[in-house]
Amino acid sequence: MKFGVCYYPEHWPAERWAEDARLMRQAGITYVRIAEFAWQLMEPAEGDFDWAWLDTAIETLAEADLRVVLCTPTAAPPVWMAHAYPDILPVDAEGRALRWGTRRHYCVNSATYRRHTERIVTALAERYGQHPAVAGWQIDNEFGCHDTARCYCDECAAAFRRWLEAKYGTLDALNAAWGTVFWSQIYATWEQVMLPNLLVAIPNPAQVLDYYRFASDSNVAYQQAQLDLLREGVAAEHFITTNVMGDFDELDYHALAHPLDFIAWDSYPTGYAEHVAPQLYPPEEALKESVPEDFAYDVGDPYVTGFYHDVIRGLKQQPFWVMEQQAGHINWGKYNPGVRPGTPRLWAWHALACGADAVLFFRWRACRFAQELYHSGLLRHDGTFDVGYSDLLAMRADAALLDELASAPIEADVALVLDYEDLWAMQLQPHREGFDYRRHLFAFYRAAQRLGVSVDVVSDTADLSRYRLVLTPTAFLADVARAERLTAYVEGGGTLLLGVRSGFKTPENAVPAEPLPGPFRELTGVTVTAWHALPPGVRYPLRAAIPALEGPATLWAEALSPHHEEVEVLARYVGGPFHASAALTSRVVGAGRALTLGWHPTRLQAQALLAHLIGELDIARLADLPRGVIARRRGEATLLLNFTDTALTATVQGALVPVPPRDVVVV
Amino acid sequence: MKFGVCYYPEHWPAERWAEDARLMRQAGITYVRIAEFAWQLMEPAEGDFDWAWLDTAIETLAEADLRVVLCTPTAAPPVWMAHAYPDILPVDAEGRALRWGTRRHYCVNSATYRRHTERIVTALAERYGQHPAVAGWQIDNEFGCHDTARCYCDECAAAFRRWLEAKYGTLDALNAAWGTVFWSQIYATWEQVMLPNLLVAIPNPAQVLDYYRFASDSNVAYQQAQLDLLREGVAAEHFITTNVMGDFDELDYHALAHPLDFIAWDSYPTGYAEHVAPQLYPPEEALKESVPEDFAYDVGDPYVTGFYHDVIRGLKQQPFWVMEQQAGHINWGKYNPGVRPGTPRLWAWHALACGADAVLFFRWRACRFAQELYHSGLLRHDGTFDVGYSDLLAMRADAALLDELASAPIEADVALVLDYEDLWAMQLQPHREGFDYRRHLFAFYRAAQRLGVSVDVVSDTADLSRYRLVLTPTAFLADVARAERLTAYVEGGGTLLLGVRSGFKTPENAVPAEPLPGPFRELTGVTVTAWHALPPGVRYPLRAAIPALEGPATLWAEALSPHHEEVEVLARYVGGPFHASAALTSRVVGAGRALTLGWHPTRLQAQALLAHLIGELDIARLADLPRGVIARRRGEATLLLNFTDTALTATVQGALVPVPPRDVVVV
Amino acid sequence: MKFGVCYYPEHWPAERWAEDARLMRQAGITYVRIAEFAWQLMEPAEGDFDWAWLDTAIETLAEADLRVVLCTPTAAPPVWMAHAYPDILPVDAEGRALRWGTRRHYCVNSATYRRHTERIVTALAERYGQHPAVAGWQIDNEFGCHDTARCYCDECAAAFRRWLEAKYGTLDALNAAWGTVFWSQIYATWEQVMLPNLLVAIPNPAQVLDYYRFASDSNVAYQQAQLDLLREGVAAEHFITTNVMGDFDELDYHALAHPLDFIAWDSYPTGYAEHVAPQLYPPEEALKESVPEDFAYDVGDPYVTGFYHDVIRGLKQQPFWVMEQQAGHINWGKYNPGVRPGTPRLWAWHALACGADAVLFFRWRACRFAQELYHSGLLRHDGTFDVGYSDLLAMRADAALLDELASAPIEADVALVLDYEDLWAMQLQPHREGFDYRRHLFAFYRAAQRLGVSVDVVSDTADLSRYRLVLTPTAFLADVARAERLTAYVEGGGTLLLGVRSGFKTPENAVPAEPLPGPFRELTGVTVTAWHALPPGVRYPLRAAIPALEGPATLWAEALSPHHEEVEVLARYVGGPFHASAALTSRVVGAGRALTLGWHPTRLQAQALLAHLIGELDIARLADLPRGVIARRRGEATLLLNFTDTALTATVQGALVPVPPRDVVVV
Repeated sequence: MKFGVCYYPEHWPAERWAEDARLMRQAGITYVRIAEFAWQLMEPAEGDFDWAWLDTAIETLAEADLRVVLCTPTAAPPVWMAHAYPDILPVDAEGRALRWGTRRHYCVNSATYRRHTERIVTALAERYGQHPAVAGWQIDNEFGCHDTARCYCDECAAAFRRWLEAKYGTLDALNAAWGTVFWSQIYATWEQVMLPNLLVAIPNPAQVLDYYRFASDSNVAYQQAQLDLLREGVAAEHFITTNVMGDFDELDYHALAHPLDFIAWDSYPTGYAEHVAPQLYPPEEALKESVPEDFAYDVGDPYVTGFYHDVIRGLKQQPFWVMEQQAGHINWGKYNPGVRPGTPRLWAWHALACGADAVLFFRWRACRFAQELYHSGLLRHDGTFDVGYSDLLAMRADAALLDELASAPIEADVALVLDYEDLWAMQLQPHREGFDYRRHLFAFYRAAQRLGVSVDVVSDTADLSRYRLVLTPTAFLADVARAERLTAYVEGGGTLLLGVRSGFKTPENAVPAEPLPGPFRELTGVTVTAWHALPPGVRYPLRAAIPALEGPATLWAEALSPHHEEVEVLARYVGGPFHASAALTSRVVGAGRALTLGWHPTRLQAQALLAHLIGELDIARLADLPRGVIARRRGEATLLLNFTDTALTATVQGALVPVPPRDVVVV
Repeated sequence: MKFGVCYYPEHWPAERWAEDARLMRQAGITYVRIAEFAWQLMEPAEGDFDWAWLDTAIETLAEADLRVVLCTPTAAPPVWMAHAYPDILPVDAEGRALRWGTRRHYCVNSATYRRHTERIVTALAERYGQHPAVAGWQIDNEFGCHDTARCYCDECAAAFRRWLEAKYGTLDALNAAWGTVFWSQIYATWEQVMLPNLLVAIPNPAQVLDYYRFASDSNVAYQQAQLDLLREGVAAEHFITTNVMGDFDELDYHALAHPLDFIAWDSYPTGYAEHVAPQLYPPEEALKESVPEDFAYDVGDPYVTGFYHDVIRGLKQQPFWVMEQQAGHINWGKYNPGVRPGTPRLWAWHALACGADAVLFFRWRACRFAQELYHSGLLRHDGTFDVGYSDLLAMRADAALLDELASAPIEADVALVLDYEDLWAMQLQPHREGFDYRRHLFAFYRAAQRLGVSVDVVSDTADLSRYRLVLTPTAFLADVARAERLTAYVEGGGTLLLGVRSGFKTPENAVPAEPLPGPFRELTGVTVTAWHALPPGVRYPLRAAIPALEGPATLWAEALSPHHEEVEVLARYVGGPFHASAALTSRVVGAGRALTLGWHPTRLQAQALLAHLIGELDIARLADLPRGVIARRRGEATLLLNFTDTALTATVQGALVPVPPRDVVVV
Repeated sequence: MKFGVCYYPEHWPAERWAEDARLMRQAGITYVRIAEFAWQLMEPAEGDFDWAWLDTAIETLAEADLRVVLCTPTAAPPVWMAHAYPDILPVDAEGRALRWGTRRHYCVNSATYRRHTERIVTALAERYGQHPAVAGWQIDNEFGCHDTARCYCDECAAAFRRWLEAKYGTLDALNAAWGTVFWSQIYATWEQVMLPNLLVAIPNPAQVLDYYRFASDSNVAYQQAQLDLLREGVAAEHFITTNVMGDFDELDYHALAHPLDFIAWDSYPTGYAEHVAPQLYPPEEALKESVPEDFAYDVGDPYVTGFYHDVIRGLKQQPFWVMEQQAGHINWGKYNPGVRPGTPRLWAWHALACGADAVLFFRWRACRFAQELYHSGLLRHDGTFDVGYSDLLAMRADAALLDELASAPIEADVALVLDYEDLWAMQLQPHREGFDYRRHLFAFYRAAQRLGVSVDVVSDTADLSRYRLVLTPTAFLADVARAERLTAYVEGGGTLLLGVRSGFKTPENAVPAEPLPGPFRELTGVTVTAWHALPPGVRYPLRAAIPALEGPATLWAEALSPHHEEVEVLARYVGGPFHASAALTSRVVGAGRALTLGWHPTRLQAQALLAHLIGELDIARLADLPRGVIARRRGEATLLLNFTDTALTATVQGALVPVPPRDVVVV
């Protein structure tokens, strides 16, 4: 297990650097990420490079036997550049050009910015591409952060038109795909096509989905331009990655991760508990079963943290790095709770348990000035040890065990399908307030966590044949190819659960001409004869043959009508407008089985269904878990993590295993 | 009773049109509205018309014996036009020019757009003005929708100045009317007068009221320009109408409806229940007496639906059309509940019962693409029958009864006064949060519905002499002419109830110089010696001589002091700062009576008062109603509509009448 | 005691003025403020003055023996000026130039506006500077109102750069102070420095704090320009003041008040109860202990009103004027409750009791037109007496007593420190939602009010030696000079209570390099070894040696570690992450004592601590008070004010004193 830290030598006097390096080593740190916001210091004026400080910094770290993760500094264009070349600045959805003074004030489609980027990346690669202390590279930093993934400048508008021309070939094809005959918005020339902002009414959903795709592609292409320069200019053994934000959903992280050596992410459990958890828990449930009841207040929500660890691992289906690991309190939450000793260690173990190869704490030392001065580091502002540093020292005793586990593979029998285009299309038109793509997934994910079942979160273009059970809460944008892919999985022996709204849209974000679930009709053997959004309080009773799978349906219900003889009905609506229609069906296809779930399950319904399916498939549960304990498996080891202040007991293969508070037990 | 449908042949292959027409006929449809967003197809490039498709579409419908309501397509300017003539685009209150890509991206005061409008309307009238299959015309579509009634472009600013000059003649008159001496904002030249946006502080209420009037007038004038062309160009037997939105309050619908043959509106009960009901129910009451308790979740709120049916009927005091009748779930609500079989039929009956001559369902078939793809139609996306179509088939059994009733007149003894300028002035300066003009009206309206009393909702410039009782919750902007009008009504034998804040403003939106209620002092015989806005929780006890009219006063209270001997005090404040002042008075004037109500009643207080007054006036109640059942009268028939899932019983003239769930009974 | 009124003769016919003056005298009014929005009438066109109307108005008032407070009319630039010179218009944070039509549509840094200002102020001073009826001058009106203190126009940007250059001398110094090395935002030229708006991410807190200082300084400088002209042009016996808004926090009122003869403010108790109280009461507490339970609904919240009276008195540590005293209902609140007889009198007594020399009611007569037509006056729109006038008549019986008290000094043994720069820095980065600088102060203030303890609210640059106890909830931005100042106070015999987050920031808004509380370490004798923001519901138990000072710590907790032997620990954390750390300490320094409080107290905790400290210091409590009664001391008199509708009894020096409802008793 590699430990590391994010370090900003430029924020401190050079005289301090050697002492910092010594303290890093002392705490077991081996990797140090630097320079992602240091463009101004590297190139104080256009074409005028100054490497002396960076040479010294890297040298100082190298002397302490630390390895450097060097960043391209493009996330923060220097002031001189933005001032001299205002065409690099992004334009927001309100049509306003934004200004320098913070970070990410650039448009990925700016030709000028591309030129500056090429110059700095080339120069960096030349200078440090063969440096023995450099282990690898991070490209930019948190693409899309601060609402910058989608820019509305004129260069983006022009690039969008080119992107559309490349995709559709002709305006006729675009007009057909977008349905511009609606409201008389047929385009006669490419230059008439605009970005979907500053409109009178709600925009065309096909146009917006294409714009989202274009914006994501633009970021991926911008990364690729840097990647190409680095691949050409740096040593082959240098890894190249970028650091993403788990919950950020404006970029297709599958595409962004694809060309990199591995993916890294920035994990901030208390920030996610404050900002992301409310989007993942159902509003109703949040009232009665609040997160703080399950976990200590300062550990975040480990279901949420784990969900994003699993999302990130699934991007490339391989181990990942935590490039920034929260080390103490943060500065961008609502309450920013103080973090207690033991918590940073628990987070590091959790990351490892979820497949991290390396954990770099953010940041080395709390910065005395500027935007992040309230963000903690391993050291306090005054240089004393904060809880993160103390925990790192404490973890030296864990080192051997951590190293052993870090090389062990992570395997799961169950896959949960995540697709960013499905997410975008649903986000654009949820139709029923509270129907959220990620919340839908999370109902199943949390059920699995409570059951102690290992889950991979993957794209359904990944190799699914390794999984015994694939959960696809919504396979929204579906064409024949997608149906064939899932059918092949089932025919090969897999069990597939397809949820509501699957097949509701074509990849063009239109509704298919055929009955629902569109291209999945053959595979599922059912037709959706009617679907209803259910307002809060409206319940459609149903009866299921599966233990503990009790009704009613809430939020969304679909009436299923089997059109294949062999379809087995596992649950039916009883009373209500869908009376006697099927609500859950199963069809044997080849060596496998396709289940169709006709309503949006609550977490308890998802849990009952999942328990039933893993029982049938004989998929192992890692443990029988009390609330507050998370079980994960890496290689042969089962890790039990207690995120509460109370001693708890889990049952692993029949044996009672006590788990001390804020601690981890490896079985 | 005419049934119809809104149809978009351009969204479907021409090969399908004949089948669609056949299915329409089969369901009893006789009217088909088309082409309101088809400008691009009619005129693919400027001056270059293409009528072939429309000829064919109309021909196909005609062959199935269907009659066409043809629309001017000005609600959706084609892309080529907006691109070539950006001066047609509207500017929002933030000062931003909006773009094409959706609909209504035009300013009614744009000279360029007026020119384009003239060309297309003239061409349409020439081509189809004598067509035997065309029954009539709809001008544009939902004027003002998407916040477009009020534009802030430079052409509007110039037009506003001309409008003001026409109204006031001199700047001195304008300065006096607006009180521009306040805050030193006296205008010395017309060009100094601006639209009331982008201001530092709250705007001058007289200026804003004039701007609202101007914006409404501008839309009415734009309609008139089209109307003039159509009147000149089409057959005399062709009707001409437009479709309004019931709850929309930025246009004076009395003025908009006036020059048309009849008025039509677009009725979406579940959308209104979600978006409009919360503005009509008092916030306090909404908590204890929620709408879903009274009605099935998918029928909307029939009090609200009925209120707007009655508002629309009152615009011209004659039968109206429902040009768009919700047929299943919609796409623009919060939850967009699925709609059950039987509900569309109930809505159609409700429309008829409220005075509709024709009900056109929206839309024929769910559109597979673009902004409204989640909106249902009579047919599903895949062409199968949705609940709306099935209900239409079921209604074939109702046909004879429906036809009989449709020719019967609607008569009411009670009128409720609605005035758009009063509404605007109150909206501008509610003074007490939660005091809402429409909510105030609705308290009385709902009371009447619960009592089974028929009500017309009319302007007080209408002929009031036909009513036994006129309720004027707030006659806000009052001059001598208005007082004389109401006095004449009372002197002629009518009973008038004048509520709080009546006479508080002059038509200039200033406060009158004389004591309140200003010009109504003589008629009412009382002076308002003090008025208090009451925050939530503050109650002024009072005692009334009227059964069930119990205190306290909440929300707004006025202390009334009779200054005529013959004024009878029907309720008094008891304790509190208005102790011993009158709270409800009555004065006999000529052959009638003027009552003054000194507080904003709750619905139950309004109900007690109304019950008392109709008792005194011997106005009939249609029925004694359980919650969930609505009673309406058309001609000699009393219609009882049960909007719940439970069998209920009403009492009509002493007889118990069972009303099955989701059904209508005609007595 | 001087009574007065705000009068707008220009809103009424000149024929009425003499009658108004007569009625003013009859009610005991002696001061009349006029003309603050009358620029247009004084100068109908550029350079073309018209004084006739103002001569007459002043003469008419003078004839009734009334004295005039004359205003410079710069708060409302005339339309002709804004139209001819649009460069005077302010630009908002969204980058939009705002327009005329209301008031305050000018930028204090506009060179053009400065020129116009000079012309009108000079002309006014020439004409009325020696007028015998003029008592003094008000400069402008409510600087900063309507969000105008901070402008984002180009002239402000240029002025900001000059201000920064004057402050920092070199860009290197600015870059160091702001920490622009962070995110690569180092400035190379002055013109690269921008105002902190239209940014991609959160702005640099040092930049924003400087911008806030600059904006405040700009307003103060604009006032000074007027002040210089008036000082030069008017009689020496004319006072010069301005009227501020108590709760407004975008200007440093200490700096604004400094050069004036005295300060005046505009007191609107019900408006403050609606808009300001929710920001001063803790969200949690607001639920169980709501304001209406303590006080009648129409009196506002006297804790809040009194807090701002005391804030204003502290600006110059001398008596002040209430330039606008609410006289009845207002028009800018949420509910704008009607005001009952007796309430205006209670407000006037409260102002006197808090140190007001003069109370001018706003406004003479409710205006019939324009933005404030819903605002009450002493007279109603129709000229009849409203509650304010009636109360003034009733107060004629109080006159002798009022006069006697008005000359008596106000003295307090306890000071509460208010610093606008601390407030701004905390506002910029609260770190924990709900941590509010003013709310923190108010917890102590309200505790003092409940205990009946007199408090001054002062800057800590004031002479503190007159106080026995100084409460500094947060001395946030601290340098050595500030520490020395407070140390000198303690050494001189004072008792100082320093609360959480003190010394957390340098004046540059950075975190100090040394351990916390930074420069206060020596004085307090403690180090903050850790600090935690505590989310709602998280409690750190603690145990204190002080009666009734019971735990737990909530909201914010700091672990204190004494590093001086003589530090006494008065409370300790018990359990939780700070177990055994000190939570409240005391250190004897010279002849005094410095206490350090390690958590954000609730009001009850603040009350227990304050009770303990005043007990030790033998500081007198004015009375033992029931809820709803306020005690104040002026000279030798104790005033008891009952803000409820119930007779209550207070205990003053052992004696029971009944206080009738809505009344004042002077002991």
